[in-house]
Amino acid sequence: MTQEPIDQELDNDPQYRAAVIDLLAVLAVSELTAFERMAADSVLAPTFADKASMGELATTEFRHFTALRNRLVELGADPEIAMEPFRQTLEDFHMKTKPTDWLEGLMKAFVGDGIGLDFYREISSYVDPKTRELVCEVCDDLSQAAYVVERIRTAIEEDPKVAGRLALWGRRLVGEALSQAQRVAAERDALAALIIGGVDRPGADLAEIGRMLARLTDSHSRRMADLGLAA
Amino acid sequence: MTQEPIDQELDNDPQYRAAVIDLLAVLAVSELTAFERMAADSVLAPTFADKASMGELATTEFRHFTALRNRLVELGADPEIAMEPFRQTLEDFHMKTKPTDWLEGLMKAFVGDGIGLDFYREISSYVDPKTRELVCEVCDDLSQAAYVVERIRTAIEEDPKVAGRLALWGRRLVGEALSQAQRVAAERDALAALIIGGVDRPGADLAEIGRMLARLTDSHSRRMADLGLAA
Repeated sequence: MTQEPIDQELDNDPQYRAAVIDLLAVLAVSELTAFERMAADSVLAPTFADKASMGELATTEFRHFTALRNRLVELGADPEIAMEPFRQTLEDFHMKTKPTDWLEGLMKAFVGDGIGLDFYREISSYVDPKTRELVCEVCDDLSQAAYVVERIRTAIEEDPKVAGRLALWGRRLVGEALSQAQRVAAERDALAALIIGGVDRPGADLAEIGRMLARLTDSHSRRMADLGLAA
Repeated sequence: MTQEPIDQELDNDPQYRAAVIDLLAVLAVSELTAFERMAADSVLAPTFADKASMGELATTEFRHFTALRNRLVELGADPEIAMEPFRQTLEDFHMKTKPTDWLEGLMKAFVGDGIGLDFYREISSYVDPKTRELVCEVCDDLSQAAYVVERIRTAIEEDPKVAGRLALWGRRLVGEALSQAQRVAAERDALAALIIGGVDRPGADLAEIGRMLARLTDSHSRRMADLGLAA
């Protein structure tokens, strides 16, 4: 079997290789923990149809996890070792954002996941096409989004008081997501270097990082607006 | 579209139809709640490989749930209404058998699910071939069983004290499963009539019911022995 150019590039640049593995690993842990928590939050669902929809979302996350783990193995990484550094961060995120009811669980699946996936998609523009393709595939599968939007809008129509509480909850989700992302960036040099660049590799300048943050905030506000909520 | 004979039979015998719908519905709720709890129990897993295996088990249960729900719709039943009578029973089972650690979670996936599936398989011998085929398909998919057996045997080898605790846990799982099964049989006349028979339909006599219970107990003991545990 001939090695693909990307695999050669990974061999030739250990820091770049470490960054790609970090990216795939943090995304894999995100998907796996999202799967665990969504399935657990499905217990809060008022109807079997809601449980079924949450279950679809959760099993999709698990499929993504499997694809990411397979890619790690393909690249010669030990998934266990690659994923471990991100376990605590993701567990902390979920512990600090435990939904107290079904609507909060739905919001978390849509808004919390949304900002996370946007962030990974942004980072993917700094990696090789094959890795980018996998990351985008994993990040784009929001087939149940229409269902979540409709359920939350209906709940707000039925009881407008709900809107204030959910708007606060949305802010908390984003705040926790950003604080965990900062923690990852601070601890994982290779991943941070992917964005800000290295000796031989151009990265984003400050202006570009500013624009990236603006795009993330815009997408978040758009999602909140879709739900009929203030960001 | 011509109606299949089985659908005609269901139309002609309302009690039989009710029994088939009950059987598919209780199995659907079992699979759905098993999915929710296994995914939640995956949080207890010590390694990502263990999480991945538990996740495989859980997503298989969800796929079964989807197949059963689709069949309910095909038969003209409203899945929401059909499944509701079994929700509390299954929730109670899971509440009373919450694993306190990873090994108990694994045992529950293997032993608790095992006796449940054996029971559904036994009942399926009283229904039409098409329903039976679906039930058996759903009940037979224990692809991860070898993994569970190996994990538990290793844990016992590493710390023989574990065996006593897990043997007790196995007995508790079976006790709770049987007590919930009795509750379902007591509350759902149609389902009970499927086994003991109705006016125009032969059922099992007492001797056959005794043999069925013996088969269930035997299978359970065999599973416990596979794990290296006393039943």
